[in-house]
Amino acid sequence: MGCIQSFRELCDRPKNTNVRVSLPAVCFVWQIAMIILFGVFIRYNEESSPFWIEHRKAKNISSDIENDFYFRYPSFQDVHVMIFVGFGFLMTFLRRYSFGAVGFNFLIAAFGLQWALLMQGWFHSLDYSDGKIKIGIENLINADFCVAGCLIAYGAVLGKVSPVQLMVLTLFGITLFAVEEYIILDLIHARDAGGSMVIHTFGGYYGLSISWMLYRPNLDQSSRLQGSVYHSDVFAMIGTLFLWMFWPSFNSAITDHGDGQHRAAINTYLALASTVLTTVAISSLFQKHGKLDMVHIQNSTLAGGVAVGTAAEFMLMPYGSLIVGFCCGIISTLGYIYLTPFMEKHLKIQDTCGIHNLHAMPGVIGGIVGAITAAAATESVYGTEGLINTFDFEGAFKSMTPSRQGGHQAAGLCVAICFGVGGGIIVGCILRLPIWGDPADDNCFDDEPYWELPDDEESIPPVLQYNNHMRNKDV
Amino acid sequence: MGCIQSFRELCDRPKNTNVRVSLPAVCFVWQIAMIILFGVFIRYNEESSPFWIEHRKAKNISSDIENDFYFRYPSFQDVHVMIFVGFGFLMTFLRRYSFGAVGFNFLIAAFGLQWALLMQGWFHSLDYSDGKIKIGIENLINADFCVAGCLIAYGAVLGKVSPVQLMVLTLFGITLFAVEEYIILDLIHARDAGGSMVIHTFGGYYGLSISWMLYRPNLDQSSRLQGSVYHSDVFAMIGTLFLWMFWPSFNSAITDHGDGQHRAAINTYLALASTVLTTVAISSLFQKHGKLDMVHIQNSTLAGGVAVGTAAEFMLMPYGSLIVGFCCGIISTLGYIYLTPFMEKHLKIQDTCGIHNLHAMPGVIGGIVGAITAAAATESVYGTEGLINTFDFEGAFKSMTPSRQGGHQAAGLCVAICFGVGGGIIVGCILRLPIWGDPADDNCFDDEPYWELPDDEESIPPVLQYNNHMRNKDV
Amino acid sequence: MGCIQSFRELCDRPKNTNVRVSLPAVCFVWQIAMIILFGVFIRYNEESSPFWIEHRKAKNISSDIENDFYFRYPSFQDVHVMIFVGFGFLMTFLRRYSFGAVGFNFLIAAFGLQWALLMQGWFHSLDYSDGKIKIGIENLINADFCVAGCLIAYGAVLGKVSPVQLMVLTLFGITLFAVEEYIILDLIHARDAGGSMVIHTFGGYYGLSISWMLYRPNLDQSSRLQGSVYHSDVFAMIGTLFLWMFWPSFNSAITDHGDGQHRAAINTYLALASTVLTTVAISSLFQKHGKLDMVHIQNSTLAGGVAVGTAAEFMLMPYGSLIVGFCCGIISTLGYIYLTPFMEKHLKIQDTCGIHNLHAMPGVIGGIVGAITAAAATESVYGTEGLINTFDFEGAFKSMTPSRQGGHQAAGLCVAICFGVGGGIIVGCILRLPIWGDPADDNCFDDEPYWELPDDEESIPPVLQYNNHMRNKDV
Repeated sequence: MGCIQSFRELCDRPKNTNVRVSLPAVCFVWQIAMIILFGVFIRYNEESSPFWIEHRKAKNISSDIENDFYFRYPSFQDVHVMIFVGFGFLMTFLRRYSFGAVGFNFLIAAFGLQWALLMQGWFHSLDYSDGKIKIGIENLINADFCVAGCLIAYGAVLGKVSPVQLMVLTLFGITLFAVEEYIILDLIHARDAGGSMVIHTFGGYYGLSISWMLYRPNLDQSSRLQGSVYHSDVFAMIGTLFLWMFWPSFNSAITDHGDGQHRAAINTYLALASTVLTTVAISSLFQKHGKLDMVHIQNSTLAGGVAVGTAAEFMLMPYGSLIVGFCCGIISTLGYIYLTPFMEKHLKIQDTCGIHNLHAMPGVIGGIVGAITAAAATESVYGTEGLINTFDFEGAFKSMTPSRQGGHQAAGLCVAICFGVGGGIIVGCILRLPIWGDPADDNCFDDEPYWELPDDEESIPPVLQYNNHMRNKDV
Repeated sequence: MGCIQSFRELCDRPKNTNVRVSLPAVCFVWQIAMIILFGVFIRYNEESSPFWIEHRKAKNISSDIENDFYFRYPSFQDVHVMIFVGFGFLMTFLRRYSFGAVGFNFLIAAFGLQWALLMQGWFHSLDYSDGKIKIGIENLINADFCVAGCLIAYGAVLGKVSPVQLMVLTLFGITLFAVEEYIILDLIHARDAGGSMVIHTFGGYYGLSISWMLYRPNLDQSSRLQGSVYHSDVFAMIGTLFLWMFWPSFNSAITDHGDGQHRAAINTYLALASTVLTTVAISSLFQKHGKLDMVHIQNSTLAGGVAVGTAAEFMLMPYGSLIVGFCCGIISTLGYIYLTPFMEKHLKIQDTCGIHNLHAMPGVIGGIVGAITAAAATESVYGTEGLINTFDFEGAFKSMTPSRQGGHQAAGLCVAICFGVGGGIIVGCILRLPIWGDPADDNCFDDEPYWELPDDEESIPPVLQYNNHMRNKDV
Repeated sequence: MGCIQSFRELCDRPKNTNVRVSLPAVCFVWQIAMIILFGVFIRYNEESSPFWIEHRKAKNISSDIENDFYFRYPSFQDVHVMIFVGFGFLMTFLRRYSFGAVGFNFLIAAFGLQWALLMQGWFHSLDYSDGKIKIGIENLINADFCVAGCLIAYGAVLGKVSPVQLMVLTLFGITLFAVEEYIILDLIHARDAGGSMVIHTFGGYYGLSISWMLYRPNLDQSSRLQGSVYHSDVFAMIGTLFLWMFWPSFNSAITDHGDGQHRAAINTYLALASTVLTTVAISSLFQKHGKLDMVHIQNSTLAGGVAVGTAAEFMLMPYGSLIVGFCCGIISTLGYIYLTPFMEKHLKIQDTCGIHNLHAMPGVIGGIVGAITAAAATESVYGTEGLINTFDFEGAFKSMTPSRQGGHQAAGLCVAICFGVGGGIIVGCILRLPIWGDPADDNCFDDEPYWELPDDEESIPPVLQYNNHMRNKDV
C-alpha cells in the first residue's frame, strides 16, 4: 500500500516538460548500446557480402539479378516511405502539432528499426554456427514493419506524451512485437504477410491500452488545439495518399517470390479502391448536408489495406478483396462517428488519431478474413504445389491441412490481441511515472513545449501586423 | 419541343448542393455492381496465381524473376503516385479548393480503376476458354492509365461540378476510353505506349467539351476564389514534381521488356528536361519585369512528357526528344498566356487548369510526332528484328511497312479527337441535368459546399483574433 | 589597374533584378546548344536500342531481365526524387522563398542534367569507333549525381542570387564536376560510389567559395525574411524525409550488381538511422529548455548518408555504419550551432542552408572513412574474388593493394577540395559582374523580384481584411 501511495504522490507532482537532460541521455545511451550490440551480433548475409561470391556460384545462383535485393528493394523503399512520410504526415493534421507529428515519428522510427533488427534477428536470422545475425534486404523490411506497430501506437497518444515517453514506448513495443511475432509466425505457424494481426492488431491495442493508462480527465483544457486548420489537413493528405498508394508494396514486400508478391499487390490494390467509395458514402450520409469530413477521408480510406493484410497472399480472389474493402470502409467510418466519442466518454480511452478505427478493428477483421480464407483453401484452386508453397506446409508442418491452418490463424489473432492489451497496460504503467517530461493537460497538442517555434506573422496581433505591413510598404 | 422546354425548366431551378442522398447512393450502388461484376468476370492470370506453377515450369520460365511483376512493378508504383499525388496535388493550387482537388481526385480514381479493369479486360484480357478476365500487373497499369484520362477531364471542370457529376463523368469517360483504345490500338494497330493520343488527346478534348457544355456565363461571381495563395502554390508544386519525375515510368510502363522500356525512359527524361528551360524562358519573356508565373512552371513544364508519349518507345533519338520538349514548352506556355483567355471569352470554354495547354495540344503534337517517327523508321536504325518487335509487325500485320504505320498512327489520332469531342458533348449534356447538386456560380472554387471545413484562425475577423490572441496570452 | 577599376565601378551600379532579357536568352541559347550537341554526340547504348537484339543474343544475354535497366531503374527514380523533391523542398524553409527554392532548383537541375550527360559522356562513355556517346540508365543516374553537386552549392547562396547567376553557377559547376570526377575516379582510381568526395565535398566547397566571393556585408537588411514560418518548416520536412528515405538508393545506385548494391543500401540505411538520434540529442542539449530546433532536424539528420557515401560499398560492417552516423549527427548539429555563425561573422561566408554542416564536413569525413576502410580491406573479409571486384583491381590497377588504395582515396579527397575551392573562387568572380540581375541586400530571401506572387489574404492589412471578411459574409 505504501508503495502505491508513494507512486500516487510521485504522479501528482507539477509537470515539467524540460527534456534537456533526459532526451539526450536516452538518445546517446541507447544509440551507444545499439553500436555495441551491432558490433557483437550483426553481419552481412550471403547476398550482401562479397565473401560468398564463389559460394553463390557453387549454389548455381548464376546471375546477380537473382539476388533477393532485386526482388524486394522496390517494395522496401515503398514501405520506407510509408513509415516516414506516410505515418509522419498522416499525423500532421493537428493545427499546432505538425513538428511533433513528423519529427517524433522520425525519431522513434529511426531508433526502432535498429532495435528491431536486433530483436527480430535473434528470433529469426541468428546463424547458430557463429552466433551472428546475418542481415539482408528482408531484414530491413521486417524492421520497418516492426516499427510500424509502434507508430500506430503513437497515433493513440499523439500530442499527449513527451519524446522520452515515446522512446520508452518504442523500446518496449519493439521487444513485445518481436516476441509476439515469433509466437504467431513460428510457433503457431500462422501466415501474416501484410501484418493484419502481427502489426495492426497488436499495434492498435498496444496504443489504446497505453492511452487508457494515461487517461487525462481534463484534456478539454487544450481543446482549442485539438482541431485542424485548412493547410494542416492538406499536409495530412500527403500522408494518407502515400500510405494508400504504397500499401500494395507493404502487403507484398515479404511474400513469396513470383506469383505470391504479384497476387498480394493485386488484392491490396483492389481492397483499397473499394474502401474509398464506402468511406465517402458513409461520411456523406452521416453528416449534416451531406458534407464530407476530412478525418474520414484521411483515415478510413486506408482500412481496406489493413484488413487485407493477412489474406493478401492467399487466393482471396479479386471480388473477395473488394468485399473486404467495402465492409472496412463502412465499419471504420462509423467507428470515427460513433465509437471514438463513445470510447473517450465511457471507456476513458482518448484516441487522438482514431487508431481503433484505422488499425485495431480492421486488423481484427483482417485476422478473421485470413483464417476463413486459409480454412477454405483447396488444391483445385491453389494447385498441389501451390497450396504447399503458399501456406508453407513443409518441414514440421508437412501434415497441416487448410482447415487446421484456419484454426492456427485464429489462434494467432488472439495472441496479437493479448500481447497488445497486456503489453500496453504494463508499458502504460511505466509511462505514468512523473519523470518523463510529459505536457500538462492545457499544454497538449502543442509543439511549444518541445520545439523552438518560428515567429509566424499570423500570430502577431493584428494591430502590430498592420503597422508592420505599413512599415514594409515604406521600405 | 415540349421535351426541350421541360429540360430547360429543369435546368433553371435554384441550385442545391446537398449530395447527402445522391453521393452515397452512387457510391454504394456502383461499388456493389463492381463486386458482382468482379465476381463473375475477374480472376488472377497465370503469373499471379499459384495454380500454374507446374505450367510455368513446363513453359521454361525457370525463375521467378522472369515474372512480369518484376519488369513492371516499380513503374506501376510510379504511375500510381502520378495518378493520386501527381494529379491530386497539381490541382490544389486554388486558394480554397484543395480538399476538393485532392479528395475528389482520390474518389474518382478509386472508382475509375475498378471500372477500367472490367472495361479494358473485356476488350483485351478476356480468356475465351472460360469467359473470365485474367489480370496481372499490366492490367493494373492500364487501369491507372485509363483513370488518367478522366482526371485530365476533371482539370477542365475543377471547382465547378459536384462529386456526383464527377462520378458520372468518370463512368462514361472510362467506358469511352476503353472503346477508343480498342479501336486505336487493336483495330487500327497504332502504337501509343505513353498515351499521347489515347490518354491525353482523348482526355483533354473530353474535358474541354464537357466544360463547354457546362459553360457558366456568370462565373466571375466567384472570381475572388479563382486565384491561388502562396502555400497552395507550393502544394501544387508537389503534384508537378511527382508528375515530372515519374513521367519516364509512365511512358515506359507498358512498353516492350528490355530495350523498349529502357529507351522510353531515356526519351521522356530528356524531353521533360528540355521543356523546363523553354517554359521558364517564355514565362519570363511575356511577363512584365520578367517575373515567372507559377501557373506556367506548374503545368507547362510537363508538356514535353505528354508530347513524347507515343514516340518514346521508337528510335526518336535523344536530340529528337529534346526538340519535342523544346517546342512543347513554348507552345504550352503561350497557350496559357493567350489561348486560355481567348477560349474563355470567345469559345465559351472555361478551362480551370488549362488542360488544353498541358494535355490536349501536346497530346496532338505527340500523335503527330509519333506518326512521323514511325513513318521514318528503317531497318538500318532498328535492325531487322528490332523493327518487327518495336512496331509489332506480326500476325495480321506482318505485311505492314513503316510508312503505312505512320498513316495508321495519324488515323489513331483522329479517332482520339473524335471520341473526346463527341463523348464530351454527350456526357456534358447529361451533366447539365439539374439533379447532380452542382454549385451556384458564386459558390464555385469553394470547398464549403461539399466539405466540413476547420475553423481557421486566419478566417476569424481581426478584432476577434486580437482578443483571442490576448486571451491565449493570459492563459 | 584600370581593368580592376572599371570592374569595381561596374560592380557598384545600382541593382536591377529584371531578368526579362537575360533569363530567356540564357535558356534559349543553352537549350539550342544542347540540342545541337546531342544531335552530334549522343546515341542510345546497346541496352537501350533495338538494333543490338541479335548482338545481345550472341553475347548470351538470354533474358531481358538482365538489362541494366532492371538493376538500376528503381534506384534511378529514387535519386530523381531526391534531386527534384528532396533538394527542392529542403530549401523551402524560408518564409518567403519557397517559389525560388523549388522553382530554381527545378530549372537548374533540368539544365544541368543535359550538360552533365555530355560532359560525363565525353569522359566516360565515348565510343571511339564512331565518336558517339552511348547512353543508358547509368548515365542518367550519373547526370543526376552531377546535378546534385550544383544543387548543394545553390544551398549556400539561396535567396541571394538571380536565376541567371544560378544557370552560370550550374554550367561551370557541371564542367568542373566532370573533370574532377574523371581525375578522381579514372586517373587516381579512387572509389566513390555515393559521392562523399566527388559530389558532397566538391559541391559543398564550390558553394561556400562562391558565397564567400559574393559576401554581402549588409545582408541583415533582409533579416525579416531570413527565418521560417510554421508551414514552411513542414514543407521543408518533405524534402528532408525524401532525401533521408532514398539515400540508400543514392549510395547504391551505381555500385556493383548484386551484393554491391545490397550492401551499400544496408550501410546507408543504418548510418542514417544512427544520425537521427545524435542530432536530436545534441539539438536538445544545446538549446534552452531542451527544445528541438527544426533546422537541425531538417539538415543534420542527413549527414550520416553523406559520410557513408564512399565506404557504403565496402565491408564497413553494420556497426561501422552506425558509428559513422553517430559521429556525423553530433558534428553536423554542432556545426549549425557554432560554426555557421562563426563563419558568417569572421570568415565572411554566408551559408544560407548550412551546407558546410550538411555536405562539406560530412563529405570530408566520408572521404577519410573511405580511405581507412579501403586501407583496412583484407582477403579474409572480402574473399579473393570479392576484393578484386569491390575495388576493381583489374587492368592497369591489377597490382594495387588495399593499403595503396587507401592512399589513392585520400588523394581523391584532396582533389575534390581543391576543385571545389578553386572553382568556386573563379566562378564567384564571374558572378560578381553586375550584369546578372541579382537582388539588392534588402531584397534577398524574397520571391518578389523574380516571381508573380498571389495576393494572399494574410498580407492584406487587417483593417481591409476585416472589411473584406464582412463583405464576403454579406454575399
